[in-house]
Order: sequence, then C-alpha cells, then structure tokens
Amino acid sequence: MKAAVVGCGAVGSFYGAKLARAGHEVHFLLRSDYDAVRREGVRIQSPDGDFQVRPECAQRPEEIGPADLVLIGLKTTANDQFPQLLPPLVGPGTAVLTMQNGLGNEEQLARLFPVKQIMGGLCFVCLNRVAPGVIRHIGYGQVVLGEFQRPPEARTHDLASRFCEAGVPCTVTDNLARAHWEKLVWNIPFNGLGVAGAAGPSALNPQPSTPFRCLTTDILLADAQWAQLVLELMLEVIAAARALGHDVPHAFADQQIARTRTMGAYKASTLIDFERGQALELESLFREPLRQAAEAGVATPRLAALCAVLEVLERTHHAAG
Amino acid sequence: MKAAVVGCGAVGSFYGAKLARAGHEVHFLLRSDYDAVRREGVRIQSPDGDFQVRPECAQRPEEIGPADLVLIGLKTTANDQFPQLLPPLVGPGTAVLTMQNGLGNEEQLARLFPVKQIMGGLCFVCLNRVAPGVIRHIGYGQVVLGEFQRPPEARTHDLASRFCEAGVPCTVTDNLARAHWEKLVWNIPFNGLGVAGAAGPSALNPQPSTPFRCLTTDILLADAQWAQLVLELMLEVIAAARALGHDVPHAFADQQIARTRTMGAYKASTLIDFERGQALELESLFREPLRQAAEAGVATPRLAALCAVLEVLERTHHAAG
Repeated sequence: MKAAVVGCGAVGSFYGAKLARAGHEVHFLLRSDYDAVRREGVRIQSPDGDFQVRPECAQRPEEIGPADLVLIGLKTTANDQFPQLLPPLVGPGTAVLTMQNGLGNEEQLARLFPVKQIMGGLCFVCLNRVAPGVIRHIGYGQVVLGEFQRPPEARTHDLASRFCEAGVPCTVTDNLARAHWEKLVWNIPFNGLGVAGAAGPSALNPQPSTPFRCLTTDILLADAQWAQLVLELMLEVIAAARALGHDVPHAFADQQIARTRTMGAYKASTLIDFERGQALELESLFREPLRQAAEAGVATPRLAALCAVLEVLERTHHAAG
Repeated sequence: MKAAVVGCGAVGSFYGAKLARAGHEVHFLLRSDYDAVRREGVRIQSPDGDFQVRPECAQRPEEIGPADLVLIGLKTTANDQFPQLLPPLVGPGTAVLTMQNGLGNEEQLARLFPVKQIMGGLCFVCLNRVAPGVIRHIGYGQVVLGEFQRPPEARTHDLASRFCEAGVPCTVTDNLARAHWEKLVWNIPFNGLGVAGAAGPSALNPQPSTPFRCLTTDILLADAQWAQLVLELMLEVIAAARALGHDVPHAFADQQIARTRTMGAYKASTLIDFERGQALELESLFREPLRQAAEAGVATPRLAALCAVLEVLERTHHAAG
C-alpha cells in the first residue's frame, strides 16, 4: 500500500510510522520538520517499545503523486490548506482518511473529492510531539474507522486489517457520525474545561483563585464543581447527538466519567496546543458541534459559554504569547 | 476462500449462499436436505432480490476436508455434534466461526480447537427456512464479527471484508462477549416471552385469557403489562452484563424497545422453532445467561421464572406434538 501522510504532527507521524514499520510505502509531506525527518527519520518513544522508521520525505504533494491512502493528521485549524495539499495525492482509487478531531472535516473533504472516497478515523490515543520527528506515545492507540455517510465496505475492513497488521488496534463502525458525537461527549468537556481552567476568573471557572494552568482530567474530576460541569456539558452534547438521530444513551456520560477516572492525569490535546501557544481546534471541536446543536433545536448554554470563553482566551493568550 | 457451512438451516444457508454467490468455494454439509440442495441448489427469496446458488454438497465432513472458514449455523441444541462434524474441516489455519445464538458456543468450540482459531458472528437478520434449500429472507442481515476472548486482528477484518463484498453489511467489535450480552438484552424477552405467551395461564402470562399463540414483538409491546415485563427482563439482563464487566447502560433497554417498535410484527427465531415443534435453544439463550448472572451475584428472578416456564412448555409441547 502506498500511503501519503499529510500533517506530520503527533497523530500523522505515529500512525504513519506504524504503517511504515509494517512494510508499507509511506510518504511524509513535510514542511518545518523536513530536514530533521529526512536526516533522522521518525522516532516513536512508546511504552510498547521505541522504534524508528525512515519514510520517504517530500516537501510538495506533486513529488508523491496519487496514493492508495491519504492519511490526514493536520490540525483542523489548517484545513484551509486542503485544496493546495491534497489533490495531487488523490486519484480515482484513493481512500482519503481524516484522522482529525471533531466535526466537519469529512464535509470539507467532500468539497474536493467524491463522497465515496472519504473515510474518517477516530483516534483514541495520547501522543505528544516532543521534537521534530520525535513522538512520545503515552498510551492507548485504538482507531475506529468508518465511511463518510455510508455503511462499511470491503475497503473499510481492508484498511482496518492493514492497521491491525501494523499493530494498531482497530474496529469498524457502521455509523461514523454517531462515533464522532460519542467522542465529542468526552472531548468537549475535557479539552474545553481543561483550557478554560487556565482562564482564571470567569463564568466557567468555579474556582476563581485557581492559578493559571491547564487542568488535566484528574484535576477536573477531583473537584466536585468541575466534575459537575463536566457532567452537564456531556449531557448537553448527548442531547444534541440524540436530537440529530444518534441514540447515545444519557448513561454514556457517567460511563465516560468513570472510565476517565481510571486514566490518571491525562492531558487532552487542546491543553497541549494551548500551552504551546498554538491555535486551538475551536471550529471542529466546539463551534461546529454548537452550530449543529442549535440547528437541531437543542439548548446547549454551557457549550455556548465554553465556546465564548475559549475564543476570548485564545485571542488573549495568542496576543500574550 | 474455501468455506464449509455446518448447519444448513436458515442462517447457515443464507450466509453460505451469499458467499457462494460472491465466488467463494462453498461446501454445504447436509443431512436431511442433501438430495434437495444437490438437485435444486439453495434458493434465497429476499426483498433485496431472489437468487439461487449451487454449492458443493457433502454428507460427511471428510468429503470436504480442511477449509479456510467453517461457518457454523447449527441450532445450539445440536452442539453435541461438534466433535463429530467439525474436526475434519479444521486445519491449523482454519477460522472457526459460530454464528449461533446466545452464550457458550465459542466455549464449546474451545474444547476442540485453539482459542485463536475461534470467532463469533452475531447475526441481526430475520430468516425463515420454508422448504429444504429454500430460505425466505424477511429483513435485516447485518453481522457483527469478533474474536473469542481477544481483540480484532487482521483476519477479523479480512473476513468482514469478504462478507461486505458478498453483500452482507458487517462491522467488527472489539468485545465479542459484550456484544453477545447486548444481543441477549433483546433476545431474552422477545424470544422468551414470545413463546411463554403461548403458555396460557402462568405466572408469566399477565393475560391468562390469551389463546394459545406465539406473541410477535408488536403484540408484546402493544400490551402495557407485557411491555413492562419486556423492560424488566431487559434490565435484569443488563444488570448481569454490568456485573460481568460489560458497560451496557441501563438506557439500552429503552433504546431496544423503541427500535423494536419500528420493526412491526417480528417473529423471533424461538417462536418459529416452537411453532414447528423443534427443540428450543434454552441452553444458550436462557440457561447459560441465567447461570452466568447467578455466578456474578445478580438476582434475575424474572429470567429464572421465564426459564422454568419455557422448560415446562417445551416438555409439554413436545409431548403434545
């Protein structure tokens, strides 16, 4: 399989490196990390064992040409680059797989490519890019694959099979949209409140004396007021999902909280972005879900407030940084 | 792929015929239907379009020899035939797939073959064998595949891919045991009460004046007392599943009931068995779940009563028939 990895941050590099290690022809499309990766390859530091691969490196998509699989690991804040980066990589038989966070990414791909070529992959993994070409794998790694607006096909399972062979635990869902909403039930509170906790005094911070710091999952759940807000946000997201026809049960919230309590001090990806002064994935993780909830007629006041705080915070923080 | 179908009732014939139509080398192991199938093939009558295939027919497993896939569609009441029927079909690379109802089937296979060769497939399908080699497909058809006591592997997805190519919608679960329990949440009330409704006056029939007839899903849900009993049984099954470590939410019961209301007059498989005077799948659908619930320390009084009624009913009915 010829795979092109677009967006070689933590997610793209990690899964791309796994495929390369399994013997696939993997091309990384790189910009700032080009020299480092060409010189040193991609190094994965993992509790499952460290490894290094030397993928093909390119600076322009034309150097790679059409691939069997395009694996998109870009931050969703860079989705405006799709029209420049992707078309040279996509032929009539190419599967275009977004492994990005949140809602709307497949839809943006569908402006460029036929729906039947578009797939989504939900990543349940904790990663950290510690240097150019160096990814620290902290835990987990499962991928849930689905077809955009369609049930699974043979090629869905064929790709899942390639992931499994490459050491990536993988399942196949028959409803990618529902899977996205289920993941948002976790992502919205733990990414959003984790950063909003850095806001200091605000409507969303029940402890105005909290010093400026991001709140990991354990901190959010150890405090009764934060934990209550986590739960209420989850229930808003579930209400929106249900109004959109996805039968996510209300009890899913308690399950997610119980599961998260077992995870220790987990730092959601938005916290890492924020601490680095990078743009937050507000559009895909917060604004698009809020928009879809409103269209479905569901009131999500806490999600709306969270969005507003994050927007202010991002502007302030970027200005400061 | 060389596949051997063992148990050529509705389930085995339907999925075996789909694989044969897709070009696989499919062997049917037959007893009473041998002459009919050899002469006329297998005919599927379906709202998706009728079709006919002519699989290889055998009367003894030695005629078939080791296959890539053994697809087991036997009624679980015939599981004592595993040691006679299966070993000649199984080589070191054979996947042994039980598509049977309920709990305990994989465990029985594991007495004969290594755990790593055993898979389970949950069938969400309404079928009726109307004559030897003639199967009426009434609706649905999805299969959920999983590995016995293990997460999915490449071969899990490879097989799912073959099913998809053959026109069988297929997903892959990472937890076959949980998937079995989720299916039991539906199967136990609708199979059990559907037949128990035929019992006439009994502790489990809130309408003693009901004439002797099996109760389809619509009848059970149209009556408030039956519907309440459906719900209570579901909650017992969910409590057992949860005690065994499967996080099936309590709300799953309401979801299943709501979904079933959209299905119309659905006749669960045990009702069909009962009306034909065939043995009921009491062991895998009722007794083994009851046993596991008891071992997990969960009280399931309604399930226990249902089991008792079904046992009496089967003896009486068989004696009468």
